[in-house]
Amino acid sequence: MSLNQRTVKQWSLPDLADGCARAGVRGVGLWRAPVQEYGVAAAARLVRDAGLRVTSLCRGGFFTALDPAERAAALDDNRAAIEEAAALGTDTLVLVSGGLPTGSRDLPGARERIADALGELGPYAAERGVRLAIEPLHPMFAADRCVVSTLAQALDLAERFPVEQVGVVVDTYHLWWDDTVGAQIERAGEGVDRAGEGSGGVGKEPGGGARSRIAAFQLADWITPLPEGVLLGRGQLGDGSVDLRWFRERVEAAGYRGPIEVEIFNPALWAREGAEVLAEIVDRFRAHVG
Amino acid sequence: MSLNQRTVKQWSLPDLADGCARAGVRGVGLWRAPVQEYGVAAAARLVRDAGLRVTSLCRGGFFTALDPAERAAALDDNRAAIEEAAALGTDTLVLVSGGLPTGSRDLPGARERIADALGELGPYAAERGVRLAIEPLHPMFAADRCVVSTLAQALDLAERFPVEQVGVVVDTYHLWWDDTVGAQIERAGEGVDRAGEGSGGVGKEPGGGARSRIAAFQLADWITPLPEGVLLGRGQLGDGSVDLRWFRERVEAAGYRGPIEVEIFNPALWAREGAEVLAEIVDRFRAHVG
Repeated sequence: MSLNQRTVKQWSLPDLADGCARAGVRGVGLWRAPVQEYGVAAAARLVRDAGLRVTSLCRGGFFTALDPAERAAALDDNRAAIEEAAALGTDTLVLVSGGLPTGSRDLPGARERIADALGELGPYAAERGVRLAIEPLHPMFAADRCVVSTLAQALDLAERFPVEQVGVVVDTYHLWWDDTVGAQIERAGEGVDRAGEGSGGVGKEPGGGARSRIAAFQLADWITPLPEGVLLGRGQLGDGSVDLRWFRERVEAAGYRGPIEVEIFNPALWAREGAEVLAEIVDRFRAHVG
Repeated sequence: MSLNQRTVKQWSLPDLADGCARAGVRGVGLWRAPVQEYGVAAAARLVRDAGLRVTSLCRGGFFTALDPAERAAALDDNRAAIEEAAALGTDTLVLVSGGLPTGSRDLPGARERIADALGELGPYAAERGVRLAIEPLHPMFAADRCVVSTLAQALDLAERFPVEQVGVVVDTYHLWWDDTVGAQIERAGEGVDRAGEGSGGVGKEPGGGARSRIAAFQLADWITPLPEGVLLGRGQLGDGSVDLRWFRERVEAAGYRGPIEVEIFNPALWAREGAEVLAEIVDRFRAHVG
């Protein structure tokens, strides 16, 4: 189990490193803004000294701009994100690919601009030991955050590029409703060495088998009613509609052996004491996932 | 163009009949609660006298209960809805199929209970000249309203039954984000007589060709941010991200010749004068759909 930093937004980076170490959690998913604020090199040292592995960096992406200057700025920013990921020692940069530009209704065009950006950034990332991880976001975010809404679409994109350059994120919150997600998880693992030598991440010392397209596996539960803006309505593990264990079994059957990251955006969790929240997550993880 | 009653919730049924007649709109989609309140026979007479056709009745469904008594009550209620549809002279009963029962995470089981209900109600409906129309709802409603989230799923269900018993609803608000929806609309029209003899509805005097699975075609635009609860955030035609004309062209290419119903749930429209809202919709329809 890995803890995504945003799940305990109330914690500073030192609090996070300390809290995870105390709770016996060995991995953390980090976000660019708090890492930049603390200093990338200092953050890398902090988590390393606490014995933690950085399982992913959130987030690159936002590739759908039509304006050439905006587009160039997005690519520059993604190169910086790749360098930050490498400095933190993680092999996974999570991408939120971008929604429709203002006034546009052209979903296929936006998706093609994402493919163009992946083609441009993929080699740059792989040279630094980082894989770009396309995260399909729930369809309710298609207009304003991410025009990639299903695992099938994410794989259609990823498969146009070498497996060490581009992978996908399986996040239960975004994908739980989809009756094709089991088949698509299987597709993501095609050709992977199921004996366990294949790695979920690209790693620095790759195993023997072919690699899964699954670069990251993230957990949150689905609860209703959704709050205004729908971004901060994710549920604590076990509180909602998602069969989390089913997902874990599916990604494992597809050869995924990487970390399982808990990523919950919920103001009710942020209002509580971080250590208490983390202890609850560890309990819930045992009950509903492990 | 047909106007769904909920789009102008501020109007009473007589206001609606009068307003549509004045605006030259010839079809209305009705809802059970206001029709029952007015009286079903009286409502049927009112709209007929105003020269209006009832293009659909909303809504039946909610088939996913696990409790036998609850399930029997739902089937009874749907038989009543079928009779109301027949009395109003519409051939289409729109179904909101139901979400997950409290505490359940079993999506496939819920979907199978929907199929069971369709099998039970389909002949009862067809005998009365009414077709059950499965409406796939946006995946953000999967937990609490409808576990049928895509047109592919709706067709998978519908195709298990005769075409005169069970069809599907294509609603742009629910389906716009899906990159497979074009292919699925085509699938819905397979075997339909494209010369125009096939009918979108089952009709009382069927045309020559085979019938489309598309029982209704509804329009609303997608706008953000979504409001709390996400139910009442639909956009006026042209205000959002949906390529409405693309949808119209696709359903027509699939042989659909039925009404195009405008169904927008939005408190900002309800706060305005009904006739003004309808005039705006007619303008927007011309600009973005017609």
